[in-house]
Amino acid sequence: MAATFDGKNLYYRGAGTFAVAQRLHQANREKAMRHVKQKLVDVEKKSSQTLAGYCLLRGGTDTCRHNTDHEDLFRQESFFHYLFGVEEPDCSGLIEVETCRTTLFVPRLPQEFAVWLGTIPSLETFKQKYGVDEVMYSDDLAAELGRLKPKRVHLLEGTNTDSGLTMKADTTWFGDASGFEVATDVLYEALCDSRCTKTAEEVEVMRYVSKISSDAHVRVMKACKPGMMEFQLESEFLHHCYSSGGCRFAPYTAIVGAGEHGAFLHYGHSGAPNAGQIPDSSLVLIDAGGEYHGYAADITCTFPSSGKFTPEQRVVYEAVLDAHTKVIASMKPGVSWLDMHTLAERAILSGLAAGGFLAGDLDEMMAANLGSVFMPHGLGHLIGIDTHDVGGYGPRFPPRPDRAGANRLRTARMLEQDMVITVEPGCYFNRYLLTRAFGDASHSKFLVREKLEANLNLGGVRIEDNVLITADGSESFTSVPRTVEEIEALMAS
Amino acid sequence: MAATFDGKNLYYRGAGTFAVAQRLHQANREKAMRHVKQKLVDVEKKSSQTLAGYCLLRGGTDTCRHNTDHEDLFRQESFFHYLFGVEEPDCSGLIEVETCRTTLFVPRLPQEFAVWLGTIPSLETFKQKYGVDEVMYSDDLAAELGRLKPKRVHLLEGTNTDSGLTMKADTTWFGDASGFEVATDVLYEALCDSRCTKTAEEVEVMRYVSKISSDAHVRVMKACKPGMMEFQLESEFLHHCYSSGGCRFAPYTAIVGAGEHGAFLHYGHSGAPNAGQIPDSSLVLIDAGGEYHGYAADITCTFPSSGKFTPEQRVVYEAVLDAHTKVIASMKPGVSWLDMHTLAERAILSGLAAGGFLAGDLDEMMAANLGSVFMPHGLGHLIGIDTHDVGGYGPRFPPRPDRAGANRLRTARMLEQDMVITVEPGCYFNRYLLTRAFGDASHSKFLVREKLEANLNLGGVRIEDNVLITADGSESFTSVPRTVEEIEALMAS
Repeated sequence: MAATFDGKNLYYRGAGTFAVAQRLHQANREKAMRHVKQKLVDVEKKSSQTLAGYCLLRGGTDTCRHNTDHEDLFRQESFFHYLFGVEEPDCSGLIEVETCRTTLFVPRLPQEFAVWLGTIPSLETFKQKYGVDEVMYSDDLAAELGRLKPKRVHLLEGTNTDSGLTMKADTTWFGDASGFEVATDVLYEALCDSRCTKTAEEVEVMRYVSKISSDAHVRVMKACKPGMMEFQLESEFLHHCYSSGGCRFAPYTAIVGAGEHGAFLHYGHSGAPNAGQIPDSSLVLIDAGGEYHGYAADITCTFPSSGKFTPEQRVVYEAVLDAHTKVIASMKPGVSWLDMHTLAERAILSGLAAGGFLAGDLDEMMAANLGSVFMPHGLGHLIGIDTHDVGGYGPRFPPRPDRAGANRLRTARMLEQDMVITVEPGCYFNRYLLTRAFGDASHSKFLVREKLEANLNLGGVRIEDNVLITADGSESFTSVPRTVEEIEALMAS
Repeated sequence: MAATFDGKNLYYRGAGTFAVAQRLHQANREKAMRHVKQKLVDVEKKSSQTLAGYCLLRGGTDTCRHNTDHEDLFRQESFFHYLFGVEEPDCSGLIEVETCRTTLFVPRLPQEFAVWLGTIPSLETFKQKYGVDEVMYSDDLAAELGRLKPKRVHLLEGTNTDSGLTMKADTTWFGDASGFEVATDVLYEALCDSRCTKTAEEVEVMRYVSKISSDAHVRVMKACKPGMMEFQLESEFLHHCYSSGGCRFAPYTAIVGAGEHGAFLHYGHSGAPNAGQIPDSSLVLIDAGGEYHGYAADITCTFPSSGKFTPEQRVVYEAVLDAHTKVIASMKPGVSWLDMHTLAERAILSGLAAGGFLAGDLDEMMAANLGSVFMPHGLGHLIGIDTHDVGGYGPRFPPRPDRAGANRLRTARMLEQDMVITVEPGCYFNRYLLTRAFGDASHSKFLVREKLEANLNLGGVRIEDNVLITADGSESFTSVPRTVEEIEALMAS
């Protein structure tokens, strides 16, 4: 993590922050174009040589809130960021598939904009900053395409498997598309394939952002006192990531749930904006990460507000930690993520049974899918430029499982070297799910109802690391106190 | 500012924060409906009694980034917030113009959402929270309109005079609009009129958010040390507003420009993300505010990074402060905002001349519009739920002035009691503008070129308060050290 800043790197936010090498995006482009060529071979059953053509991508545009002049702070569209690393809005980029020769198109700004911007960056400035072969103005794109006379231009079109939302190829923005074939059959999937394993350069950035986010979690644990508001911990977290780590963006809205709020999986959003007061002796679940140069961390810690776990909190916490430890110890290339999800469920149910919350045979509990009552979400997801990164499902990969809990998995793939995935087992005493389970004979027979009902305000525990799959195992990027003893020692200090 | 929380107020973020009274939005609705009726009288030249009908507004909707499942943190659409104060997305509201009877429509969520949300708020919960007459589910809106059989339904349609963007009335989302007349001629302008003066309840919130933001500026001044990164001050500011003030949103992206960056009016955005290192003995210009329950503060402080102004910095600073003081002392109902702009220009030019940066006759400088070289923006803007609040221009108000500088004014209106407006004179040594002025005989004759060129890295000074127009004068909500002596004393402490 020691890359030092030599004035030539692409992205750097001052002493103590990470200097992102310009070659990161060049490596991404080269890798992506290999995937495009491979897809062409797969699709056309012949050499890609003559048909490869160009990939044309449009970056994100500046947006205003409704019809006001309130400008949302611009964050680049993820595919565009992956290939070009460009911070500015309203750009586009053209990559020749065979050669990887790259041209960036930037808006032509009137000289008067120097009043607002200081200086208008020149084309040469952009070229130096982003390490591309050429930079032209956006209004020259149509002419450049006319000059290049490509046989085929690949555009992005595809559906995100987490949101279900489709990005449609748009040929209206770059002028005349009549001189070439527009292809939408390979680029989206090729880029998803490329993005879902990480290069050495990407791993360095992700290790850094995970370290900064881990430090922020430690700071939050030290700052927490009963009586504080949940959002004060959120603010402490964000301040550390930005001020000490240069993370201007959060990859997602932080969840800070104290007590029963920890069992609300979607806490923190506009209807429940981390605005509760933290009770004495309650668990606090904080799921928060930083984002650096577009790469996300997604880490969850759970700790007792007063610094000491109650016996019941400890049982639940250690059940989840056992799941977390066992999963990470089992992860390596070729392992099924669905199997890991199942492993985590078993560990959690086993811990709850040992602690007296459940009674009965563990295999029968698993057969009844009891795990989904306590962990109604998937074990984890690919992470990268999107928090829920692309590539989880696809025609070549295992389909979404049917059974409750596992059907929330964002991927059911076999793990591959260089994937980065979150490991986030959780156990929640969610009033709605427990009430339903009490009324369902196949589940209620295992539930020690009086003990569960007496602990409904326990809330939830989630323990989440960001983990790289290595050649023969895994490496967690996350470094926070995890055992009960470590957490209690930190909070006492 | 002492409203205490009794558990019945609409919005409260814990000890030390402000409890917003539920009656705030009821007062807004009553005021807005008076404006609607007045417009109807104006437009139709007859009684509004039988034709008034209903106003129907649609709140903001949840949005995702491109086709990912990254949810942007929801902030309510401003007109909808003004009338209803609702935090949640995907709502709509119906107000009977004559009676002000109000029905809120909220999404019907499946019971399973309790897994994510904890509990699904009931209609009664929404009714209690928002103090409306009735709450129904959104999918009942069409039936309710059928039952009410309104003669006329007013929808929002109009153009924001700051952005130039138009909000178009949309009749597709609420079902069958065939049973009544859809009117778009009065609502937008009536709401702009209503919003551009503030009620007593709104003033209390704005006084609070300005106080929190002022405190954050003081904290930033104390924290500043040469060698820090500009964004570290931004982070400090945001942290104070959120953690101590409950301000989850910033009303706009903070500008933190040190040295020459202070002269870049649009600094802080994606292409120039407050990522410079703060030099020794440079001016630091920070333009930042908090937002509380949708109401904005917009405050600028300028101070020396090392805690002591250089003689040249002091000249420029005190020229701007003189403009700031004179304008605030002159503000009262009936005063022309364009006149105030001109007053500020004159004070700044006078100060620059006294400090040896300019030479010549002040009246001739004013006649040559020299002020726009140093202050290329307007003196200030209406502020409220939008930072650049609505109502600046309109058919009944003075048009946008022609001359440079003044043509950037966001309003040229006569001041009215209960308006809140920013007072933000500035003076910048902007390389582009000075270079152009050196080449323009009508300006260059006043410029002491060697002195200006020797100070091109001075950057800029802006001093910005948020000011309420009272019955016979004004009241600034902003409380930060303003004189050179006050700032130097604070930074030495």
